Amino acid sequence: MMPTLLLDKQKCLTNIERMAQKAHHNQLSFRPHFKTHQSAEIGSWFRDFGVSGITVSSFRMAQYFAAAGWKDILVAFPFNPLDIRQLNELSKSARISILLDNPDTLDFLTSLEQSTHFYVDVDTGYGRTGIKSENRDEIERLLSAAGDNQKLHFRGFYCHAGHSYKSSDPNRRWAIHEKSMRNLGALKSQFKHLEPLALYGDTPNCSTQCDFSGIDEITPGNFIFYDLTQMMLGSCSPNDVAVAMACPVSGTYPARKQLLIHGGGIHFSKESLQMGNKLVFGQVVSNSGKGWSIPEEQNFITSLSQEHGVLEQCGTLFDQTRIGDTLLLLPIHSCMCANLMRDFQTLEGKIITSINS
Amino acid sequence: MMPTLLLDKQKCLTNIERMAQKAHHNQLSFRPHFKTHQSAEIGSWFRDFGVSGITVSSFRMAQYFAAAGWKDILVAFPFNPLDIRQLNELSKSARISILLDNPDTLDFLTSLEQSTHFYVDVDTGYGRTGIKSENRDEIERLLSAAGDNQKLHFRGFYCHAGHSYKSSDPNRRWAIHEKSMRNLGALKSQFKHLEPLALYGDTPNCSTQCDFSGIDEITPGNFIFYDLTQMMLGSCSPNDVAVAMACPVSGTYPARKQLLIHGGGIHFSKESLQMGNKLVFGQVVSNSGKGWSIPEEQNFITSLSQEHGVLEQCGTLFDQTRIGDTLLLLPIHSCMCANLMRDFQTLEGKIITSINS
Repeated sequence: MMPTLLLDKQKCLTNIERMAQKAHHNQLSFRPHFKTHQSAEIGSWFRDFGVSGITVSSFRMAQYFAAAGWKDILVAFPFNPLDIRQLNELSKSARISILLDNPDTLDFLTSLEQSTHFYVDVDTGYGRTGIKSENRDEIERLLSAAGDNQKLHFRGFYCHAGHSYKSSDPNRRWAIHEKSMRNLGALKSQFKHLEPLALYGDTPNCSTQCDFSGIDEITPGNFIFYDLTQMMLGSCSPNDVAVAMACPVSGTYPARKQLLIHGGGIHFSKESLQMGNKLVFGQVVSNSGKGWSIPEEQNFITSLSQEHGVLEQCGTLFDQTRIGDTLLLLPIHSCMCANLMRDFQTLEGKIITSINS
Repeated sequence: MMPTLLLDKQKCLTNIERMAQKAHHNQLSFRPHFKTHQSAEIGSWFRDFGVSGITVSSFRMAQYFAAAGWKDILVAFPFNPLDIRQLNELSKSARISILLDNPDTLDFLTSLEQSTHFYVDVDTGYGRTGIKSENRDEIERLLSAAGDNQKLHFRGFYCHAGHSYKSSDPNRRWAIHEKSMRNLGALKSQFKHLEPLALYGDTPNCSTQCDFSGIDEITPGNFIFYDLTQMMLGSCSPNDVAVAMACPVSGTYPARKQLLIHGGGIHFSKESLQMGNKLVFGQVVSNSGKGWSIPEEQNFITSLSQEHGVLEQCGTLFDQTRIGDTLLLLPIHSCMCANLMRDFQTLEGKIITSINS
């Protein structure tokens, strides 16, 4: 038996429904990010909740989901000029929208064949990509240059406030959210003659904030699965986490109450969380017969190599565990774990494939 | 264009030849670990250097390489009882050897169908798996219990001194190596009536140590590619690194001299190295026309998300780089990067597939 990524479909549906309702109550359009699951079948679950537009982070994903019938796809990555052929090809059958944050990119878009929507990527403090939201001049220069391309149509502003992932303090996260909304609101007002939309929404903020004034569309992805990182941030309750790894136990080491699982960095990814003075790579949950539940005793993967996972100082779990058993564990970052695992297995035993299968 | 893993085949061949010669000069058998490349084609390059036995870390890999014609395969992971069916199946066509470090595992080996070699996994200080090499009683108990299974044949001791990866101090690494050799030598002598072999060898020690007294066989893997981690440890010279990522540049941010590449955690993995006070995820190299070389100015990936790679404070590289360019970068850990990338592209443009293709 290999490490297996278990999926609780009911939890996924509940997570989708909760976010779809939140969008609805706030008069927000809902364009979920599909990089989390990268699966046509899982993607199809969103249709029942009224979703027709999606977000992806590469043209490879855009191709995959276009082939699965999605007709409105935002590639939320500053447009890579070397993808121009893929953009032209895909735009024949779907409305592909792109992000721009630099006039230099426009030189490569003169060979655009289809009418294409674009959003200006704006940065409200994350510092990864985008034009600083306060920098109106730079945005105007980009819009003016883009105006020379008859095929390009400005649709609005896109913002990923990913720094929300890095703060465990809810007040700090609220401040990040509030600033993002304020800045996006200001941009909408400054450019109101162009009727821009404001697209926004990481999972922590979309899960926990209540006020989305000035936002038109939210684009979270991780919320369908959640994970240990989101649990620790308070984005979800422990019972909302919809994926868990099943890993065989191959070794027991009484002197250090240590367990060895088959499940390493090529399964969980090397994403880690700081817990007190140590890094952890996954947390043990209890098999509840139909799914899993969070036990009182906390046990973590404390080191990972390529195929090995090591759990140190395991307390009563050590005494209860035998070689040949299977442990269930929540991943630190479900997007990265799912990307590595490729296939999902539902609690009913059905295999669900992904772009990587 | 997607991020692409470039492979310098000539460097690989030189790296293999150097290690094969080192084994030969030290009268060591050479059983390279194939988890690094996981590629039948790359594996075949070893045959010209006299390699006939290999090491892998899962039954999935064992199946793949057995199908590629390898007849002598050590699965260097404490045997996972849930793999008994695969072991029986594979053993019909190849000699599969396993690792044991716990008598409890023997309960699952009563259904062994073919004669099977095993090695006792011993721990000389790494603390991941294995019986402490000083613990002769525990080893004797395991050997005695294994003696009841007529299909199981003891072949020797296996040791992975993986703590060598964690020390940047050559003296400390020498001490790790010396203790491992001493402990393995003592075990060979204590159990000499059983004529045990001693299998040993991580890439840092196999690359840099000179004395392998008491060792019979070395099992390094990473050395075929090396990477930034090995460069920093001094296991190789910068020019020995045989893999580099080619990533398109999608964004330039003058205020912070920052570049954005398409190349994230699903390409490089989230392995990182501490450099001064920051974590880095890859280092820029110069395109030398035919391959790459190490430039004087050092530039690193300073943060990675799923698809985004960010290089901050890039110095003259920033001024020389345009959107639409491609950067070449050395990965932190080539095994993890190759596992994610699946395919290799040689400098001549040939695609080489792997188990993950």
